[in-house]
Amino acid sequence: MTIAEQFRITKEFQVKDANAKKKPLGTAGDDKDGGKAADKLATLKLAEEISDLQNVLYAGHERKLLIILQGMDTSGKDGTVKGVFGQINPLGARTVAFKAPSNDEKNHDYLWRIHKEVPGKGEVTIFNRSHYEDVLITRVHEWIDQAECKRRYAQIRDFERMLAETGTVILKFFLHISKAEQKARLEERLADPEKHWKFDTQDLVERKYWDAYQEAYEEALLATDADHAPWYAVPSDSKTQRNLVIASIVQEKLLSLKLKYPPGNPEYSKLKVE
Amino acid sequence: MTIAEQFRITKEFQVKDANAKKKPLGTAGDDKDGGKAADKLATLKLAEEISDLQNVLYAGHERKLLIILQGMDTSGKDGTVKGVFGQINPLGARTVAFKAPSNDEKNHDYLWRIHKEVPGKGEVTIFNRSHYEDVLITRVHEWIDQAECKRRYAQIRDFERMLAETGTVILKFFLHISKAEQKARLEERLADPEKHWKFDTQDLVERKYWDAYQEAYEEALLATDADHAPWYAVPSDSKTQRNLVIASIVQEKLLSLKLKYPPGNPEYSKLKVE
Repeated sequence: MTIAEQFRITKEFQVKDANAKKKPLGTAGDDKDGGKAADKLATLKLAEEISDLQNVLYAGHERKLLIILQGMDTSGKDGTVKGVFGQINPLGARTVAFKAPSNDEKNHDYLWRIHKEVPGKGEVTIFNRSHYEDVLITRVHEWIDQAECKRRYAQIRDFERMLAETGTVILKFFLHISKAEQKARLEERLADPEKHWKFDTQDLVERKYWDAYQEAYEEALLATDADHAPWYAVPSDSKTQRNLVIASIVQEKLLSLKLKYPPGNPEYSKLKVE
Repeated sequence: MTIAEQFRITKEFQVKDANAKKKPLGTAGDDKDGGKAADKLATLKLAEEISDLQNVLYAGHERKLLIILQGMDTSGKDGTVKGVFGQINPLGARTVAFKAPSNDEKNHDYLWRIHKEVPGKGEVTIFNRSHYEDVLITRVHEWIDQAECKRRYAQIRDFERMLAETGTVILKFFLHISKAEQKARLEERLADPEKHWKFDTQDLVERKYWDAYQEAYEEALLATDADHAPWYAVPSDSKTQRNLVIASIVQEKLLSLKLKYPPGNPEYSKLKVE
């Protein structure tokens, strides 16, 4: 079983706190720090391999890689970007954080600002939040009704299929934390003035809707999982295991593409540099 | 004398091969590899510091940093991005490579596509080539005449002053290689089929205009150097010294900004996470 298969959601997928706490890729049990150092080392090695593979992807100028990160506040989307993709050459790789839509964005369909940012040939693009917010926060607060939500699932499936059919590899990660872990992380932010800039009182408001969010995630993921756009549920109470799982799946996928540098041009060997 | 002062161009600035070959930040002379390993280690340390400083810049959401990289083909613009900015968090940092303008871009003034990509608050943006191509390649091939070129120098000065006045720190690097070094690097690319994708026969055409380019660079840099948008001439025949010089100047500049995390919100200490 590949690591990707191990974390791909199934039809029985449920968002339950117990699943957020798992340390599924547990390293040598005799580590005094709970395996953190070993996780980090393994992740760094994978991050470097991802960086090398991205270089070939870039050179090939053919395939496109889209990574989607979703999760509750404090689930570690920024930390994943840094830990898993921090070694990647900024040339050819890009992160896009989608915040509340601007007025101009609201004047368009919800996929408009997303489509503008999808990767081009040879590019890796990481979405920190995405069009999935348009079936999550909007659903939880009942800005859209159930019928509209279902229409959007179908639209998202169609959109992602089109992207896949036109050469985009899509990997979607649900960073799954438990309610208790979010509490601890929010308290940590509140306790440290240097982390206040990351804090938004709105986070506490959204936290009140915890159960509704869990339900919305469960439904959205099940409705939009597909072989060409799979969802991976990543236990994320442990930050180091989270990064290790995601790095493993990305590296595995890139390896499976059997990327090669484009063939050399035989004519070039005849060229002289004056 | 700061490192920045050491490399800032003066009124006597000349583009001469001899200047490209210097190893001005030479490390311990007893290194058997010409100091390469020591250069790399020092650069990595600086790159990590730059990454930490960028995090504070991002948190502060106030200052903007624009890095412009210019230089002849093979001068190492991509290598600089990877070596100096490879440790930076992709969140809040972006590289933009400007190629030959598209039809839509040609329908606008030459600063239009540039302005769209300048950093926002808290952002670091690295330009791999820039609006300077519009006074270099265009001048060398006489697509614009001397009067138009001078008009553009003034427009560029005005544009960059506006960016600086609205909170952008600008650092401009001329990656200076000698003609012999370019020959060696082009031959290396031609010899290795895995590097053919980086090669363009147009590179050999441009190389024939070497002297005209040197003249155009000299004039453009002198015409657009300013305290708020300084040009640094970086000897770049040595890749490791090039990265070390650029990393030093960027780190020095970021330190000088005395960036601080935004003040904590005293109200936050009263908040309870339920």
